[in-house]
Amino acid sequence: MGSMRPRVVIVGGGFGGLWAARTLAKAPVDVTLIDKNNYHTFLPLLYQVAAAELEPEDIAYPLRTILRKMPNTSFVMADVDGVDFDNRLVKSDGLSIAYDYLILAVGSTTQFFGVAGAAEFAFQLKSLDQAIEIRNHILSCFEMASVETDEEFRQHLLTFIIVGGGPTGVEFAGALAELINGPLKKDYPGLDLSCARVMILEAANSILFGFPQQQRQYALNRLRSMGVVVMLQTMVSHITQHTVHIKDRGVFPTETVLWTSGVTAAITPNWGLSTGRYGRVNVTSTLQLQDHPAVYIIGDMSSVDDGRPLLPMTAPVAIQEGIHAARNILLRLNEQNPLPFTFKDVGAMVTIGRNAAVVRMGKRDFTGFLAWLVWLVVHILNLIGFRNRMIVMLNWALDYIFSDRAVRLILPFKKIWYNKKD
Amino acid sequence: MGSMRPRVVIVGGGFGGLWAARTLAKAPVDVTLIDKNNYHTFLPLLYQVAAAELEPEDIAYPLRTILRKMPNTSFVMADVDGVDFDNRLVKSDGLSIAYDYLILAVGSTTQFFGVAGAAEFAFQLKSLDQAIEIRNHILSCFEMASVETDEEFRQHLLTFIIVGGGPTGVEFAGALAELINGPLKKDYPGLDLSCARVMILEAANSILFGFPQQQRQYALNRLRSMGVVVMLQTMVSHITQHTVHIKDRGVFPTETVLWTSGVTAAITPNWGLSTGRYGRVNVTSTLQLQDHPAVYIIGDMSSVDDGRPLLPMTAPVAIQEGIHAARNILLRLNEQNPLPFTFKDVGAMVTIGRNAAVVRMGKRDFTGFLAWLVWLVVHILNLIGFRNRMIVMLNWALDYIFSDRAVRLILPFKKIWYNKKD
Repeated sequence: MGSMRPRVVIVGGGFGGLWAARTLAKAPVDVTLIDKNNYHTFLPLLYQVAAAELEPEDIAYPLRTILRKMPNTSFVMADVDGVDFDNRLVKSDGLSIAYDYLILAVGSTTQFFGVAGAAEFAFQLKSLDQAIEIRNHILSCFEMASVETDEEFRQHLLTFIIVGGGPTGVEFAGALAELINGPLKKDYPGLDLSCARVMILEAANSILFGFPQQQRQYALNRLRSMGVVVMLQTMVSHITQHTVHIKDRGVFPTETVLWTSGVTAAITPNWGLSTGRYGRVNVTSTLQLQDHPAVYIIGDMSSVDDGRPLLPMTAPVAIQEGIHAARNILLRLNEQNPLPFTFKDVGAMVTIGRNAAVVRMGKRDFTGFLAWLVWLVVHILNLIGFRNRMIVMLNWALDYIFSDRAVRLILPFKKIWYNKKD
Repeated sequence: MGSMRPRVVIVGGGFGGLWAARTLAKAPVDVTLIDKNNYHTFLPLLYQVAAAELEPEDIAYPLRTILRKMPNTSFVMADVDGVDFDNRLVKSDGLSIAYDYLILAVGSTTQFFGVAGAAEFAFQLKSLDQAIEIRNHILSCFEMASVETDEEFRQHLLTFIIVGGGPTGVEFAGALAELINGPLKKDYPGLDLSCARVMILEAANSILFGFPQQQRQYALNRLRSMGVVVMLQTMVSHITQHTVHIKDRGVFPTETVLWTSGVTAAITPNWGLSTGRYGRVNVTSTLQLQDHPAVYIIGDMSSVDDGRPLLPMTAPVAIQEGIHAARNILLRLNEQNPLPFTFKDVGAMVTIGRNAAVVRMGKRDFTGFLAWLVWLVVHILNLIGFRNRMIVMLNWALDYIFSDRAVRLILPFKKIWYNKKD
């Protein structure tokens, strides 16, 4: 470009990266946003794609369309494989992109804690691709079960095990139970769905760790009333293609394991970044990398190493850190010192299914129908794109009225067809 | 089941198979519908998925949901690989499904007429998977072009060649030109799109063969005014990964060739069916297989061998034949003779883009805005499912008002990333 303006490179078009770009949109800098996908994913609703409640497109939005309103920002679709911090170059797919300031915001990926077979045989729910893979797999299990004559294997095909009772595990379990008891029951009149089973295996003695006791109990009761089997203090020792093994407690045969019990920064060792607690990169209280102050690291992939409690890996944290990192860069451009980041807690919410959610906002906790309405409104308002909002609202309204789901396509490319004796 | 009712097996859940099943819904027969997908595809709008105008889910509908209203019909998702006509068994994925009457309606697949490289390097547009593949590829070409420094290769990345000027080629060319000149122009402000090129190569001396001369001319003018290069009397001799070769006329470098110029029955030789004109299976005027009168073959995959002109491979033909085959089976059950099939021509229509279409209905031909409105209404009314209709209408309305497209996701799984020197 030949411009003399400072170059800010942002890696990652999630909540953190996008809000950093928005904050810089009117500043005298040239911004390059890099993402391996050409879309932003609204991750809080990802589990609904996996449960065939929303379509992938409903929760994704083209990054280039978002950037149309930011003339100082260009987009590069590339999979970043490392950073040359000394020469200030982002490396990706053969490209080298130079920066004066860098914001790393690539988010988190699944962490298996070394459980044997987990990486190989368990599904993950951290990206749109993975959500589609789970949806295809679950629907294929029902198709296979409908022609399976071996009763025992049919039971295994209809057993769905979720490892981890955090928000993702709880929300997905609720949505899957509703999928099975609603649309799939109508779709498979010849199949005895009383043997279908959704299970949550949680290592701690409670689900939704971190939520108030009354909310955890509400969620547990609610899940159980929907037929979800919740097993607490249950540690998975290893996983095979057809089984989940519990420490000292035996074996569950199943064709479907979803691993939601751990995350870590989505970087490989050759990024040369040392990670601390929960595999997150330590940064200063100003969100900078200690040895490379031109580099800011935000969102799920980082943690402030100043003795304060670790921040959760949520959209509000990423958004606030993205805005803060961008503002610190603007301060530096004015030769001022960057400021330490303070998180403003806006609360937390988890939905368990139709008319049921738990919400914590400020000092107020509530559960049930009102919480579910709040959850609905907050998620609709935060979805990017007028069209996505309308289509999600339309889908939810039709789901609610007809207890049915939009589309249950096994799409696209490869059908997942298993053999018992593989 | 232990039932003594006659078993009718229908292979294929397209227009033909579905309307046959509907016709049999109240009859004293047990029907099994087999399809390799768990959804029906509304093929007339497939090109809009390939051109990122509609989402795959908008034109697909779960077969099991359609069959909920037909208690005598069950569904099996399986890829049929042959029929044992002597023992009356449909073979598929290790299953054997017995029939008393069989309706084959598996449709058509791309026919390359032996053009070298075509099967290997050209895209096809006959299924939802293929439409998604084309969409991903085209959007990836734009992403690659946006970071490509070699001007010549950038030009090749932005050259899109469609082989065949029939309805599919014409509709897709128009939709692609509008995608490029509308949303993509806004998405890639840094990319010079004047070098982007959409071309139709047609072997005959006219596009839309079979339509009235005035309509063909209208469509040709319209395409050219949208910047589509239409080359008539142009025969493709062979295709490589990076080029299309024209008989006696040279070479076009391109990364994208879509082959729409030929179709044939979607069966393999081990079905043991002999094919006639256009690779279609010859049937009697009652739609039966000469040697196996329990077998009816309908839609794209068959042609009546009675000297009358060949029927087009369209939805109306498939629907009318599906209904007719089912009625002939009901006649046989009442020990009456099956009746010969007569096609009631309902017309034909092709859209070229915004406000432009050609329509033939009965004796009336018309073009332009009115034709486009008729096209719109007919397609919306024929889409299956209330929700699909609403979402397609909403998408089209927003497209029309904002000249934009819903979503342009490169989704899912593998990104198609090419090397110049492959």
